[in-house]
Amino acid sequence: MTNNLLAGKRGIIFGALNEQSIAWKVAEQCHKQGAIFVLTNAPIAMRMGEINGLAEKTGSKVIAADATSVEDLEKLVSESMEILGGKIDFILHSIGMSVNVRKGNHYTNENYDYTMKGLDVSALSFHKVMQTTMKLDAMNEWGSIVALTYIAAQRVFPDYNDMADNKSYLESIARSFGYHYGLEKKVRVNTISQSPTMTTAGSGVKGFNEFINFSEQMSPLGNATAEDCANYCVSMFSDLTRYVTMQNLFHDGGYSSTGVTQAVIEKFKD
Amino acid sequence: MTNNLLAGKRGIIFGALNEQSIAWKVAEQCHKQGAIFVLTNAPIAMRMGEINGLAEKTGSKVIAADATSVEDLEKLVSESMEILGGKIDFILHSIGMSVNVRKGNHYTNENYDYTMKGLDVSALSFHKVMQTTMKLDAMNEWGSIVALTYIAAQRVFPDYNDMADNKSYLESIARSFGYHYGLEKKVRVNTISQSPTMTTAGSGVKGFNEFINFSEQMSPLGNATAEDCANYCVSMFSDLTRYVTMQNLFHDGGYSSTGVTQAVIEKFKD
Amino acid sequence: MTNNLLAGKRGIIFGALNEQSIAWKVAEQCHKQGAIFVLTNAPIAMRMGEINGLAEKTGSKVIAADATSVEDLEKLVSESMEILGGKIDFILHSIGMSVNVRKGNHYTNENYDYTMKGLDVSALSFHKVMQTTMKLDAMNEWGSIVALTYIAAQRVFPDYNDMADNKSYLESIARSFGYHYGLEKKVRVNTISQSPTMTTAGSGVKGFNEFINFSEQMSPLGNATAEDCANYCVSMFSDLTRYVTMQNLFHDGGYSSTGVTQAVIEKFKD
Amino acid sequence: MTNNLLAGKRGIIFGALNEQSIAWKVAEQCHKQGAIFVLTNAPIAMRMGEINGLAEKTGSKVIAADATSVEDLEKLVSESMEILGGKIDFILHSIGMSVNVRKGNHYTNENYDYTMKGLDVSALSFHKVMQTTMKLDAMNEWGSIVALTYIAAQRVFPDYNDMADNKSYLESIARSFGYHYGLEKKVRVNTISQSPTMTTAGSGVKGFNEFINFSEQMSPLGNATAEDCANYCVSMFSDLTRYVTMQNLFHDGGYSSTGVTQAVIEKFKD
Repeated sequence: MTNNLLAGKRGIIFGALNEQSIAWKVAEQCHKQGAIFVLTNAPIAMRMGEINGLAEKTGSKVIAADATSVEDLEKLVSESMEILGGKIDFILHSIGMSVNVRKGNHYTNENYDYTMKGLDVSALSFHKVMQTTMKLDAMNEWGSIVALTYIAAQRVFPDYNDMADNKSYLESIARSFGYHYGLEKKVRVNTISQSPTMTTAGSGVKGFNEFINFSEQMSPLGNATAEDCANYCVSMFSDLTRYVTMQNLFHDGGYSSTGVTQAVIEKFKD
Repeated sequence: MTNNLLAGKRGIIFGALNEQSIAWKVAEQCHKQGAIFVLTNAPIAMRMGEINGLAEKTGSKVIAADATSVEDLEKLVSESMEILGGKIDFILHSIGMSVNVRKGNHYTNENYDYTMKGLDVSALSFHKVMQTTMKLDAMNEWGSIVALTYIAAQRVFPDYNDMADNKSYLESIARSFGYHYGLEKKVRVNTISQSPTMTTAGSGVKGFNEFINFSEQMSPLGNATAEDCANYCVSMFSDLTRYVTMQNLFHDGGYSSTGVTQAVIEKFKD
Repeated sequence: MTNNLLAGKRGIIFGALNEQSIAWKVAEQCHKQGAIFVLTNAPIAMRMGEINGLAEKTGSKVIAADATSVEDLEKLVSESMEILGGKIDFILHSIGMSVNVRKGNHYTNENYDYTMKGLDVSALSFHKVMQTTMKLDAMNEWGSIVALTYIAAQRVFPDYNDMADNKSYLESIARSFGYHYGLEKKVRVNTISQSPTMTTAGSGVKGFNEFINFSEQMSPLGNATAEDCANYCVSMFSDLTRYVTMQNLFHDGGYSSTGVTQAVIEKFKD
Repeated sequence: MTNNLLAGKRGIIFGALNEQSIAWKVAEQCHKQGAIFVLTNAPIAMRMGEINGLAEKTGSKVIAADATSVEDLEKLVSESMEILGGKIDFILHSIGMSVNVRKGNHYTNENYDYTMKGLDVSALSFHKVMQTTMKLDAMNEWGSIVALTYIAAQRVFPDYNDMADNKSYLESIARSFGYHYGLEKKVRVNTISQSPTMTTAGSGVKGFNEFINFSEQMSPLGNATAEDCANYCVSMFSDLTRYVTMQNLFHDGGYSSTGVTQAVIEKFKD
């Protein structure tokens, strides 16, 4: 599907690791819709990933940046404006990582240094990105900034661990910064709360297969795919959605508004 | 448990059909906590029920009233003030019925006369009760009015049918009327969103056993019991909660904030 | 802005009264984006309005229908499929009216016949539309149905009166019917919660000017315009948003997530 | 008001600085209701405050503890059990501080070391308290843990700055830890979202007087007082509310459900 919806728009896309990544699909769709953009990821993620293939395919440059480093972000944003030839119209933040999850620490047995590190990567980085673009006056008016999140910010999914708290913090940043960015530059900031998706990040979570399965059966339309999430991001980057800001938007096939389905209840007949 | 929390308070309790009813338990607990009150139910429900035993046990009078009839409500409220010797301090609304459910109509095949009738009984009756007490200036300052509701007002539980829409309407009435009653008389109005409970009303819903079972396994504390709901109502009628108003309060063992439990996810392996 | 986003799509648009109407703008934008559609309104509204001009401009047919009449709706849907040459892809429900408001009845002094009439027009009509399309199997897969609503469904705006309760009921219908329509036909159903808008309907509400002013100052981006709302509807009708369903989506310049702005707080310095 | 509601219960109360503190009022009410407890605060806060007077008045011991130090917390919890003669039944967390606010940093100009420090004090400390009591098996079954929060976690109040994000994180911890504590020990965890209150902490926020004034006029019952908040905490610590867990409970005179009041709208007449 291509409608030239993003013609003339410039973006920065964080978090495209490989073909499974939502950010990867977003880059592909933005390209199809006429946008130009810079791809970025943490240096270590870039070594693991295949981002150069994506860059080639979409005619994009890649800039390595640690999203927790203000210095790296300043360099990224400045260079992006140079490369793209102007101010930025859209940003995708698709970054998340919990050290406690990686190390197998139960939520009630957190290592607080790990907690802080995960928060910095998964949530505070979003603030740092926006504080940087604001300082550099790098966003065009009516620009659109989106971060990906998950419904664990509202309801407990035990294996999601401290990522739930990180996502709550992330969504709060979207509201808080969205307020100031809206007043100052008419830039809007939202989070998209996506169905569980079989990405490299997702597949690292314990019990993820069962969880995807549960979620699929609890969603009237089924789990939303990464491709569809990319299309939704396109709509949020486009001028069709200019007055939507400071919102957490569920893109989940109806999961968030479903208490139970017939398919699920069947399993509770004794 | 008795702490004389409601000493000197006068109430009206709608909806005590039999020992399984939450309203029945509320009456028992209010009595233990020192309150006096009038019991009321629809004439037909009173014939089916055993409300006279409850009245005897709690030293209460019973007044039959159709809660959809403003005339009946005026009589009820006036007589209650006479019987109890003063204005009212608390009201429990525990009334709900869907004709579409009773007749087995699927949600996508509603009979709209039934829909309207169910709405009148389940939701508009709550407005009628408050409009009546306000007209008769029947509530004391800082009085407390509670209606029972269910989380189907926020998320779909398919067998709950049009009762979901009724409960949404009911919760909206609590906010809307709570605003005006708060400003005018400092009366507060809230809804309590209770776990599914095996009452006579509940047991009429198709698939209710599976549903209770699912809910039990999705609640970290298990389903809240009718007795505990009664205690919670006591706290809401007491002076301990005077600044809580226009709220929907979940009394559900944590269900509403739980995305999934380990017990539930186990059923979705492979 | 035109991107052929709705090329090949067929719709039904309820509620275009005159140029101020949001539905009017939606029709214009849908036309620009390549959709074909039928316009409909209540017979009385059609006499007052200028819908024929819009029909001409967009190459559309007009069919009068009372949205509370299942018979009228069946005729409307059947004829629309004939006129448009196939099943329906999108529907806009932009209908609302409170008899209590019109008659000047305070919320605590409702006439319950008026209440029921207003609910039927403003909310139950939405159910009737969908029950009709479902019965006639009139929707294409992945079709999109949107109703317009207002944040009074969540928070009290006293002059909004019983429309608040109607909108709560409407939003609940969107969830409830969205569940069933999603499972059966992958049709998605959402409500868009729009900033207060100076339409003919809006301007009838007491104190509406002050209210628009307050809302403007409480929204980081200002009140969303009717034109922008139309664009947002286009995005919801398009294939970019296929996994968004059963949601209430705020299109309000950030109002719903703003507690207070500096501009507003200034007025509270004594 | 005393009803012996907390007879036989043992608690730990964080954050009583002086008579204005909500925690101070909570201690007074808990004492009246028959509870015994330990008071604790940061060493520096204890030097500034008058906690010893409160301790004397309520027959309590005081233990200094930095709530960000797991070591201090372990000592606090162990000693509390010794002093009180058994496991703990209730905990109040009333701690919050933003270094960015203190230093006058605008939200879009955060110092991230300050951000992290404020998060540790205001939010992560809540996790540390619970992780410590869980490790030491220090809570009785059906124990109740409450943290105080503010609606800035849901809507932006610009001067509240990064405390909004901290409160979002805090509320997420309540849900996440509440899940695990509920399953393991039937301990319930909630947050109470209190009206703005003229405490020493509150009065440090820029524009707080205007803000209190705005909030008062936006609340049908007016702002909730510290005394009433203490009573509400008592209800949450009592056995009347045993199935309420993982909730954020608004104690705010109806503010959270009010879109606008007549008093506020008057200011927007031009």
